[in-house]
Amino acid sequence: MESFFEVKRPDEVFAIIDRLSPAGEETIPLTEALDRVVNRDLTAPEDLPGFYRSTMDGYAVQAKGTFGASEGLPALFQVTGEVFMGRAVRIVVNQGQAVKIPTGGMLPEGADSVVMKEYCHRLDDETIEVSRTVSPLENVIAPGDDFRKGTVFLKKGHRLRPQDVGVMAGFGVTEVPVFRRPCIAIISTGDEVVPVDRTPLPGQVRDINQYTLTALCRKAGAEPICMGLCPDSFDTLRETVERGLVQADSVWISGGSSVGTRDLTLRVFESLPDFELLVHGISISPGKPTIIGRSGTRTIIGLPGHVASALVVAGVFMTRIISRLSGYAGLPRPWGADVEAELSRNIPSANGREEYVRVKLIETGARLTAVPLFGKSGLISTLVDADGLVRIDMNTEGLYQGERVKVMLFDYRDGGLR
Amino acid sequence: MESFFEVKRPDEVFAIIDRLSPAGEETIPLTEALDRVVNRDLTAPEDLPGFYRSTMDGYAVQAKGTFGASEGLPALFQVTGEVFMGRAVRIVVNQGQAVKIPTGGMLPEGADSVVMKEYCHRLDDETIEVSRTVSPLENVIAPGDDFRKGTVFLKKGHRLRPQDVGVMAGFGVTEVPVFRRPCIAIISTGDEVVPVDRTPLPGQVRDINQYTLTALCRKAGAEPICMGLCPDSFDTLRETVERGLVQADSVWISGGSSVGTRDLTLRVFESLPDFELLVHGISISPGKPTIIGRSGTRTIIGLPGHVASALVVAGVFMTRIISRLSGYAGLPRPWGADVEAELSRNIPSANGREEYVRVKLIETGARLTAVPLFGKSGLISTLVDADGLVRIDMNTEGLYQGERVKVMLFDYRDGGLR
Repeated sequence: MESFFEVKRPDEVFAIIDRLSPAGEETIPLTEALDRVVNRDLTAPEDLPGFYRSTMDGYAVQAKGTFGASEGLPALFQVTGEVFMGRAVRIVVNQGQAVKIPTGGMLPEGADSVVMKEYCHRLDDETIEVSRTVSPLENVIAPGDDFRKGTVFLKKGHRLRPQDVGVMAGFGVTEVPVFRRPCIAIISTGDEVVPVDRTPLPGQVRDINQYTLTALCRKAGAEPICMGLCPDSFDTLRETVERGLVQADSVWISGGSSVGTRDLTLRVFESLPDFELLVHGISISPGKPTIIGRSGTRTIIGLPGHVASALVVAGVFMTRIISRLSGYAGLPRPWGADVEAELSRNIPSANGREEYVRVKLIETGARLTAVPLFGKSGLISTLVDADGLVRIDMNTEGLYQGERVKVMLFDYRDGGLR
Repeated sequence: MESFFEVKRPDEVFAIIDRLSPAGEETIPLTEALDRVVNRDLTAPEDLPGFYRSTMDGYAVQAKGTFGASEGLPALFQVTGEVFMGRAVRIVVNQGQAVKIPTGGMLPEGADSVVMKEYCHRLDDETIEVSRTVSPLENVIAPGDDFRKGTVFLKKGHRLRPQDVGVMAGFGVTEVPVFRRPCIAIISTGDEVVPVDRTPLPGQVRDINQYTLTALCRKAGAEPICMGLCPDSFDTLRETVERGLVQADSVWISGGSSVGTRDLTLRVFESLPDFELLVHGISISPGKPTIIGRSGTRTIIGLPGHVASALVVAGVFMTRIISRLSGYAGLPRPWGADVEAELSRNIPSANGREEYVRVKLIETGARLTAVPLFGKSGLISTLVDADGLVRIDMNTEGLYQGERVKVMLFDYRDGGLR
C-alpha cells in the first residue's frame, strides 16, 4: 500500500514531462518535411519575390502618366514592347510609354505600376488609351513583399504545414533541419494475451494494446516499433526492454502495472542502469497505475493493461511526451483539439482524482450534446462509440446535466491536457 | 467574357463534388489501417470478450453466499483453488467456495462474481472471510459486454482511429477492407516557374505549388504523384495530363487557369476523351478561375497559379474531393476543424462572391481573437502567418469588429466548408 503515497497529481506529471528534451536532430529532404518540427529559426536567404512582379494582365507604366485619366479624358501611351513570362526585359519604360505585361510578369525598368487591361483601349499597334488613374506600386508585388532577406520566416519548434513547406520551396530550401521523430518501442505483456492472428483459447484475449498504442504514436508524430508480446517473466521482459532501449527513445509496456502478482514492470525498470522512478501512480481514473521513469536519457513507461485505460493515459500523457521529444514548441493543446458541448446528464465523480469520461457527441441543429458512455475500463466498445473525453477536475464532485463542458477530441495532435 | 456567366456558387460546386464516387477498394493489413476508410459495415465475428472475466484481483464466488456479509458479520468461504492468467480453469465453484482470481482472469464455472481482495481476509490456507456483499456480475465482464456477435462494430465510410484499429485486433481481423486512397497527379505550369533546386533568373520564381499541394494531399489522406513542372505548351501539357490520368484518380494543374495568353488548361482539358466541363469559375475570392471537369471517371482540376489562391481553393474544395474519392461518410467538416473567435477589425467584402480571409489567432486569457491578414494572393507569407480562414458569405457586405466568427483551421481533414 506504500505506493499510494507516491501517487502524483496530473499537473505534477505534466511538469515532469515538460522537462524532457527533444530526442535528436536530423536533416531531411523538403519532400518529407510535412508535419516535422524545425529545430532552429529559419531566416530568409533572399528577398521573396526577388523582383517587381505584376499581379494583373495589363500594361506596365509610370503611374504619374495616368494621373487624372478617366473614361472621359483618357491618357495616351505608346506601346514599346511586351513582357514574356519568366524572362527579364531589356526595355526601359519612359514617361508616356507602356509595355504589355501578363500576371506574374517582371516589371521592366522605369515602370512602377500596372494598368489592368480592362482599363486600356488599343487604338492602333503602337498606342493605347488608359481610362483610369493608377498609383505607384498598384497591381505590383515589390521585392521582399512576401519575405525580406534576413527575417525569420519559420520559428524553431514549429510543426510544418503545407504552406510552410511551400515557403521553403520558394526559398530553394531543399534540405530541412528538423528534430528527429521520437521512436517508441511498444511491448505488450500478460500471460493471457495472444497475438492477433491466433485464436484465443478459453481465458485468453488478443493483443489490442499493441495496435491502439502503435496507431496513437503514429497520429502523434512518433515512429512506433512493435516489440510484440512478452510473457510475464522477469528475464524475458527485462531483455525485451533492453532491446527496446537500444532502438528507441522511449519504451512503453502495457499491462503488468497494476498491483498484484503480475506486477513485474517496476521490478524490471528498477533493474535497469541509471534508473530513476519519476511517477508511480497518477491520481486519475482510468489509468491510476501508470509508471513513468527513466533509464539514462530514455523515458520508460508502464501503462495499464486495460485497453481503455491504456489508451486514455496514452492520449492524455503520452501524446505530451511525444510532443516534448519532438521538440514542438507550440500550444500545449492546439486549437480545434477541443470542442464545447452540453452535457446530457449528471456525471458523479470521486473527489481526489481527475476523471476522464468517454463521451459521444450528438449534433442537433446548432446544438452539440455530449453523452457520457459509462463502461468498465477493460472494454474497448466505449472508446469506439466515443468522440472524445471530458475531464472532471479532482476538486469537484462531478458535472451537471446541461453544463457546458470541453470535449477533448481523439485527435492525438501535440498535446496533453492542462 | 463569356465564362463570367458560367461562374458557379460554392454550394453548387459542393453539390457537384458530392456526386463523386469512391476511387476504389482494396484489402490491407491491419498494421496499415490507421486513418483509412472502411468500405463496408463490419460485423462482430464472435462475442468480445469470449468468456466471463474478472476486472479485479480477488476471489471468484457465488454472489448469494456474500449476501448480508459486513465487517461485523463476515461470510466464510473455502478456498478451493486459483485461476492463472490465460488459462481455463477446471475447478467448479459451489456455494461457500472461493477461487483466487487476478484481474483479467477467466471466471471458473459456478462463480458469478468477484470479491475484491481488499474485502477478503485470509484466515488460514483454506479459508477466507468476506466482509462485503457483492451482487451477481459485480467486478465481472460478461461475454459480449464489449461487442455481441453479429452486431455492426464499425460502419461503412468510417475513418479508422487508434481505438477502431484496436477493436479489429480484438476480433483477430488482420486484413481490413477499405476504400483505396485516391491518387492525385499534381502538375505545375508556367514559363516563369523553375524547379526548387534551380536558382531563378530575373523574372523567374521557384515552384511552390507543387510542394503546398502535395503536402495538402497527404494531410487530406490522398496519395500525391508529383508530375513536376510543365512548360506552357499545349502538346507537352496534354501529354503530361494524359500520363497523369493513367496513374491517378484526379489530375490537378496549377497555373494557367486565369484568362489570358497563358490559358491552356481548358484547351487541353477539352481535347481529352469523354470530357465534361463541370465548373468553370467559382464565385469566391481568392480562387475564382478554378476549373473542375472530368475525363471519363477521372476528375480534372485547373487551380489558380497564385500560391495563396491555389492553397485556399485546395483547402476548401479539393479536400472535399479527396474526402469523396476516399469514401468517407462522416461529417462534411469534422468537429474541431473550426474554432470560434472574435474579429479584431472590420472586414469589408464585395457582394456576390464568397470571400476567404486569412486570419491569425491570438489568445489572451480565455479570449480568442482573429486578426485578418490582408495581402495579395500571390504572396505566401500571409498563409504562413495565418492559423486559418474566415469565410464571408456572398450576400453580406463584410464582417464587423467584435463579431464572433468561425475560423476554419488549416488542418485539411475530411472537409470542405458548408
